[in-house]
Amino acid sequence: MSVLALDVGGTKLAAALVSDNGEVLVRDQVPTPADPWPAVEALLGRVRGDADVAGVGVGCGGPMRWPEGSVSPLNIPGWRGFPLRDRLRELVPGRPVRVHNDAVCVAVGEHWRGAGRGVDDLLGMVVSTGVGGGLVLGGRIVDGATGNAGHIGHAVVEPDGPVCACGSRGCLEAVARGPAVVARARERGSPARDGRELAELAVAGDPVAVEELGRAGRALGRGVASAAALLDVRVVAVAGGLSRAGEPLWGPAREEFAAHTRLGFLAGVRFGPAALVDPGLVGAAALVLAGDRYWTPRDDPA
Amino acid sequence: MSVLALDVGGTKLAAALVSDNGEVLVRDQVPTPADPWPAVEALLGRVRGDADVAGVGVGCGGPMRWPEGSVSPLNIPGWRGFPLRDRLRELVPGRPVRVHNDAVCVAVGEHWRGAGRGVDDLLGMVVSTGVGGGLVLGGRIVDGATGNAGHIGHAVVEPDGPVCACGSRGCLEAVARGPAVVARARERGSPARDGRELAELAVAGDPVAVEELGRAGRALGRGVASAAALLDVRVVAVAGGLSRAGEPLWGPAREEFAAHTRLGFLAGVRFGPAALVDPGLVGAAALVLAGDRYWTPRDDPA
Repeated sequence: MSVLALDVGGTKLAAALVSDNGEVLVRDQVPTPADPWPAVEALLGRVRGDADVAGVGVGCGGPMRWPEGSVSPLNIPGWRGFPLRDRLRELVPGRPVRVHNDAVCVAVGEHWRGAGRGVDDLLGMVVSTGVGGGLVLGGRIVDGATGNAGHIGHAVVEPDGPVCACGSRGCLEAVARGPAVVARARERGSPARDGRELAELAVAGDPVAVEELGRAGRALGRGVASAAALLDVRVVAVAGGLSRAGEPLWGPAREEFAAHTRLGFLAGVRFGPAALVDPGLVGAAALVLAGDRYWTPRDDPA
Repeated sequence: MSVLALDVGGTKLAAALVSDNGEVLVRDQVPTPADPWPAVEALLGRVRGDADVAGVGVGCGGPMRWPEGSVSPLNIPGWRGFPLRDRLRELVPGRPVRVHNDAVCVAVGEHWRGAGRGVDDLLGMVVSTGVGGGLVLGGRIVDGATGNAGHIGHAVVEPDGPVCACGSRGCLEAVARGPAVVARARERGSPARDGRELAELAVAGDPVAVEELGRAGRALGRGVASAAALLDVRVVAVAGGLSRAGEPLWGPAREEFAAHTRLGFLAGVRFGPAALVDPGLVGAAALVLAGDRYWTPRDDPA
């Protein structure tokens, strides 16, 4: 039986009907309104049609109370302690509704059907408005003590680097999140309005674009190198807008990663863009469809 | 039934007879000779006496082939591909012999009977001649794809920092390993011959000792902060010689850790010295005594 998958971000809401082998059958998205719930309800109604579904899997921006699924996404001020799981349960009574961090869903999707297929140990990441991550180790999701495992965005990559929204300094997120990279370029006179334009300028040889994407790439490579040594993963798969910036980002990222992964056991680690178009939606679906590996709590209806 | 525990380091070999509830019944140690095997055999014979034992648990410096237990400890040039597990099996036929990284054993020991008792998620570390670590997540040991999970010593804490033995630069190990801290102090005129003397000088107010232990402490705090965000652990327990340097190390370590752990879920993390006298030996014993949680491979005699 298919499941409904929902991806709740600050910019867009995406939903899909996903078959039990992970195929996206129907997909739709809308911009995130100030009050997202009516839009979520309508969106899920559209992708569901008249299909019977086995449950709902959700990836949502943090923070959240987990596994309760009461969410307060940083970039959706209208939702503070919003009981997302409970509201979705009313839409699909008697079926499991499972909510996890959106970057954790990306990791799960890439492990289940993407770049991590066939390996036991993967770090999945999103480099976009923020920088997040999720862990699959020993073939199973790692939730952490409070459901927050995977927060690689707050690894320190530049000890004296820029102030981060978390209150710390030099976090990977502060250096490499798309809006920060673009803002630094614009302060230096770049006309780029977003990461894609900045990447195009870099490909054309614009030195500011090359330098700022290079700095983000090196920060990414350095943070991932440290994480790979700590976790002994085989695959690091990166999704999100800025991950599609191509060689201006990935060249420096791979170079810095290689410079900081000299231990023998790290030789074969694959570090690159995610393989799926919609890893977050596929991973959200997997919370329900492959819950034996990707969902730990046991307090929801079968 | 008791088990034999063995801790193989570059400086000393330690062994114990450990009761099934984790109590160290007999303990002995010798300096590590160039050819360690005869000393290992004699040491184990002494602590065993005429006790019947349920198996042997071993923590050994890396690298090693795991779970085969063929070891090549960096600081024991006489052992390259030494078949430690197979040789120990001959000593204790028909019983499980389980070999893991020595820092992994520290993590296991602290989780089983030390600072991590009662929590599910712990990072255990050693700061000594080298800097190593091990992970217990969700109440179980995390081995990683090649048995090397926990290598926090090669997290990058000073991007332009000192060259590391691994070939990289700015690794936590390169900054905070005891001999490196002492060597930097001596280059600046300090008379300290080891970490303990350096700590005594720092307590007495010697500025070079204060600065160099402070640098090591800040590197430790920074690396651990990044790891705590990534892993969502509740406890970080640090063993090893330099971990006993007191406030000159721990003051700056805690300050830097606090500065870089501003996310709400990290508020309650306990970061401090290990609770056990011999976490490595207790953890090595737990590989056998609590193998359901601390030993993954299933290829050894019951």
